[in-house]
Amino acid sequence: MKAIDPQTLITQLQWRYATKAFDPAKKIPADMWEVLEEALVLTPSSFGLQPWKFFVIMDAKIKENLVGASMGQKQPLECSHHVVFAIQKNTGPAEVEKYLKRIVEIRGGTTQALGGFGKVMLNFLARPKEQFNVEEWAALQVYIALGNFMTSAALLGIDTCPMEGINPAQYDEVLGLSAKGYKTAVACAAGYRSDSDKYAAIPKVRFKLEEVVERL
Amino acid sequence: MKAIDPQTLITQLQWRYATKAFDPAKKIPADMWEVLEEALVLTPSSFGLQPWKFFVIMDAKIKENLVGASMGQKQPLECSHHVVFAIQKNTGPAEVEKYLKRIVEIRGGTTQALGGFGKVMLNFLARPKEQFNVEEWAALQVYIALGNFMTSAALLGIDTCPMEGINPAQYDEVLGLSAKGYKTAVACAAGYRSDSDKYAAIPKVRFKLEEVVERL
Repeated sequence: MKAIDPQTLITQLQWRYATKAFDPAKKIPADMWEVLEEALVLTPSSFGLQPWKFFVIMDAKIKENLVGASMGQKQPLECSHHVVFAIQKNTGPAEVEKYLKRIVEIRGGTTQALGGFGKVMLNFLARPKEQFNVEEWAALQVYIALGNFMTSAALLGIDTCPMEGINPAQYDEVLGLSAKGYKTAVACAAGYRSDSDKYAAIPKVRFKLEEVVERL
Repeated sequence: MKAIDPQTLITQLQWRYATKAFDPAKKIPADMWEVLEEALVLTPSSFGLQPWKFFVIMDAKIKENLVGASMGQKQPLECSHHVVFAIQKNTGPAEVEKYLKRIVEIRGGTTQALGGFGKVMLNFLARPKEQFNVEEWAALQVYIALGNFMTSAALLGIDTCPMEGINPAQYDEVLGLSAKGYKTAVACAAGYRSDSDKYAAIPKVRFKLEEVVERL
């Protein structure tokens, strides 16, 4: 355990903002990027099922194509690493089985011994469509990863821009995600702010603490 | 800017786990908790609309009632601060108006000058029900806050347990959220792990990096 100073957390969360203009010349160093990928992998999820994949776009040509799929916003091109947060299509028995095998691989034991846990997950995922939409559930999990990613990046001094205003179907097409079994949920550009980004200097807008936090 | 050492981030994300047993005798110090509330407030959201409220439960009687609404899980009672992540019911014109006023309060200018931005948000929120569900959108935003919260807490050496396996309608009833205009999306217990929690010692299960991260 190696906790940080509380003021550092607030300083960095205040420092971050949705970066509009990245400096295309500044790239995230490889070892720093590996840490952020590791942070993504460590994101917690419902049952630990990790119904996601993170596509990291560094190729200039693909990044350019994603500008068109992002309502013309330039962040995918100008940032250093553009991350596409994708959900598994239809998380189900095959994914549960794979997860149980991974548990055994890491913790030992047998998948048989985990049968009860497996059944709980299968029942959860197989609930009727009126009550439960598996892709909405997966999207929620991916947003935990998005929150973790932006906070982790801010703490490392790396800028991000969450991008919901994209065309997910076009992203899927540009990246060929459907054939891989994934669907774009949201994207997040990462890199370093341009000196010319006027949004860096304007004050952050949040409601007052007493309006959004209530103690009971 | 006051970035942290990358290894510290990974150490703390490895240290965190979904805490099953909290030590009921250990409370998060008030000044530390204030930092976590501030971190929640600083969470980014779609358009900056913050369609949420965070209810922090510290009252022993209410915490006990939430055990029943959490399928009998003890974390709401045994933790130090139990956070209920609630979404606004039906984010719409009133919330957009309130947000524009807040922007003016912080940045100056007039709400008239922000009319274009206001219209973009109103159009976004008013899309037909077949295409867009405003409460699903709000829930996604709240999960960014959940991800930010768990990472922030881990960095401060505070344990958390995300709780999706709760009965949101019962939570709403226990907390009287409906009359306040909110709906429970998810909860997260925060505090300090009990020495007896055997889950603290077992290895974390994540898929291999090359299975969940793909560079393009």
